[in-house]
Amino acid sequence: MAFGANVAAQTPVVATVDSFFNEALNDRTSYNQLYRLCKEAPGRLSGTDEVYKALDLTAEFLNQAGADTVFYQSLLAPNWKKGEKEICYISLPDGSRLNLSVCVLGFSIGTGTNGIESQIVEVSSFDMLENMIEDDIRGKMVFFNQRFENEIYNTFEGYSKSGKYRVYGAVEAAKKGAIGTIIRSATNALDDYPHTGVMRYSEGIPKIPAVCISTLDANVLSKKLKMNPNATVFLRTTCENMPAKESFNVIGEIQGSVHPEKIIVIGGHIDTWFNGEGAHDNGAGCIQSIEVLRLFNALNIKPNHTIRAVMFMDEEMAQSGGKAYAARADSLNEFHLVAIESDRGGFTPLGFTMDADSSVIQSIQEMKKPFETYGISVFKKGYGGVDIYPLKKLGVPLIGFLPDWHRYFKYHHAATDVFEEVHHRELQLGSAAIASLVYLIDQNGL
Amino acid sequence: MAFGANVAAQTPVVATVDSFFNEALNDRTSYNQLYRLCKEAPGRLSGTDEVYKALDLTAEFLNQAGADTVFYQSLLAPNWKKGEKEICYISLPDGSRLNLSVCVLGFSIGTGTNGIESQIVEVSSFDMLENMIEDDIRGKMVFFNQRFENEIYNTFEGYSKSGKYRVYGAVEAAKKGAIGTIIRSATNALDDYPHTGVMRYSEGIPKIPAVCISTLDANVLSKKLKMNPNATVFLRTTCENMPAKESFNVIGEIQGSVHPEKIIVIGGHIDTWFNGEGAHDNGAGCIQSIEVLRLFNALNIKPNHTIRAVMFMDEEMAQSGGKAYAARADSLNEFHLVAIESDRGGFTPLGFTMDADSSVIQSIQEMKKPFETYGISVFKKGYGGVDIYPLKKLGVPLIGFLPDWHRYFKYHHAATDVFEEVHHRELQLGSAAIASLVYLIDQNGL
Repeated sequence: MAFGANVAAQTPVVATVDSFFNEALNDRTSYNQLYRLCKEAPGRLSGTDEVYKALDLTAEFLNQAGADTVFYQSLLAPNWKKGEKEICYISLPDGSRLNLSVCVLGFSIGTGTNGIESQIVEVSSFDMLENMIEDDIRGKMVFFNQRFENEIYNTFEGYSKSGKYRVYGAVEAAKKGAIGTIIRSATNALDDYPHTGVMRYSEGIPKIPAVCISTLDANVLSKKLKMNPNATVFLRTTCENMPAKESFNVIGEIQGSVHPEKIIVIGGHIDTWFNGEGAHDNGAGCIQSIEVLRLFNALNIKPNHTIRAVMFMDEEMAQSGGKAYAARADSLNEFHLVAIESDRGGFTPLGFTMDADSSVIQSIQEMKKPFETYGISVFKKGYGGVDIYPLKKLGVPLIGFLPDWHRYFKYHHAATDVFEEVHHRELQLGSAAIASLVYLIDQNGL
Repeated sequence: MAFGANVAAQTPVVATVDSFFNEALNDRTSYNQLYRLCKEAPGRLSGTDEVYKALDLTAEFLNQAGADTVFYQSLLAPNWKKGEKEICYISLPDGSRLNLSVCVLGFSIGTGTNGIESQIVEVSSFDMLENMIEDDIRGKMVFFNQRFENEIYNTFEGYSKSGKYRVYGAVEAAKKGAIGTIIRSATNALDDYPHTGVMRYSEGIPKIPAVCISTLDANVLSKKLKMNPNATVFLRTTCENMPAKESFNVIGEIQGSVHPEKIIVIGGHIDTWFNGEGAHDNGAGCIQSIEVLRLFNALNIKPNHTIRAVMFMDEEMAQSGGKAYAARADSLNEFHLVAIESDRGGFTPLGFTMDADSSVIQSIQEMKKPFETYGISVFKKGYGGVDIYPLKKLGVPLIGFLPDWHRYFKYHHAATDVFEEVHHRELQLGSAAIASLVYLIDQNGL
């Protein structure tokens, strides 16, 4: 009898989860939306015209998805400008110049319009830099040529070990008197594209210009420097920090029929770097969040709780969108049942990582069963997401959607992050996975 | 003590598996080999110049990988020629012609150089065709516009339901008096590319020309036919079956140090359709098989058993390579410990499917542990592979490498199956997974 009761109780839930997957795999609305977002608003970095276009587009998509309310939340966001096309070359003893594929890092100052030229010192780690004497660095550029540790199975771990050079390289080089820095792109791809990203300056340390270099050209530069240690490198960048300007999060929701005051939030970030379409990072997460609303409407499921999709502004630079969202939630005394973020690309779903109390984690782990059919089995403690992180101090359980991670850093922050690299089936398996989790939390509470 | 002993026994095995993954993820030899195979020998269908080029290339790679013996096994393989570029268009009442993206199916006869033109009848299934009267079909072409069931989680199951129209459509249409058939490509992609493949005729049923049509143009054709049911379609194909000719399997091996007479075979198929580079299908499988030998040599592991990599000829049409290999093994009284095939694309590995006695399956399942770190957890009963299947009657346990299947049919048998769609990391995770399984079987026996 207990077994029978169990089956009876579970069947409709499993059937609903299956319906989410069926609908998602056979529908192309969200894939077409991702196409439009990528092609009509590429390079939508905070402060650009493209990011405002992207806000309007996703508001339109939220309306089409059946949100009963769509609104903009005003906030202040960075307005750093990448400036003109970067110029970088190494001058060799035979008088020839070899162009290098570089691009500026977010928040970097420029070199000035005349550029800078100096000798350049290659290091493979902060330790190696630390052990060098200042006389060998002062007045020169530093070339960080750290390796990406491919043998680390989880590429996000490999990335964070390599990416710290991008973030902190300029500060560490400046401490030794360097006048600029060129940093190997934090990617496991061997390609011609610089993979950019944010960098930081530190109070009291001179600000020096910072660029990243494609991995193939990092190899070239390293080889040329071994043969010609005294060769000089010329660098010209015109990026600059402008005063912050008004920007927005876009929020769409379906009001809950039983607990409208309790919110389940799902989000991605609308901004992306200047050099790509932001297809995986993070068009995919935005579109999946919108698709969750559409799936509920397509299946005619009225949620008990309010389901809210948020397009967070400015994850890439100062996280002003995520911070503003949490500040608003705090000031309005909103109650968030849970916050889910999709910001690891539109790849085959593996599961979810949870930044929450162990009792909440256990409750969610008890919802695993209907996901088994779809190869989704990871429900473990872990990171939620950059945009939802500020909700943590309000006690909101945070959940990060976890897809396959092996291709992510091939596209990450590069010109290769385009719509064509996102696969309909993978994107939609992710949408259905998130919608199913939202549904189960909506049904069962937490 | 038992626990300690266990750890002591297991540690070197785990360390070796980790070494396979480390080496594979940091090395680019096999990825560069796949590049050469795809670019120097694209469209390497049985009987083409390209397939002989591919044999020579892979023999070279086997030598580079450290095989101590590399040889060609002579066999007879099909020599069907695809002929000139297909011409296909629908003539509309306003006098306009709309070109349709089609391509011939393997083994199909051609239309003759004058082509054929007739009305065309759309059906969505064999049942629908079965229920139509012959008068509605006779003298016309049949357009099979079956759907690909996207909601089926395992795309190989969806493919087999859709692909049967490609294989048997001409026979079923001819039974009703049709003069030709156009078949929707068996793919879940919505694209402009015909996805070809093999078709079969049946003794006593008239042979009629068969082509496949891209999914986007299948939608166009369907729409046009709804508006103009009497429109005619013109089709011209010049494919033809020529007498079989001599071809080869390429075989490379490292002789076992303890049991040289016991063979562990790993293989993929060297042939691919005329319209793509055969990167996933099945350049990836060939290169992974070669890479297993290279990995053993790179780690300086001398296997106990003979490890043999086979590039099977002609999987796509008549499986003459697989059959010839098994016949040779039988006539030479060779003992195969196990046969492993990689022919499901170069995607993130999930595990292995096994066509073997339950005791063998259990032995292999007991080797799962070191794979856990790499998310490889499927070790279940299932299909081995087309090329190794003929070894089954010799009692050889068959194992099919199982990667993620969500993207495979986007590329399958189409012009989109190119090197650029194979990712270094995914390919090499697969190579390491196969090498690890070979190593564990070599160490433990079966």
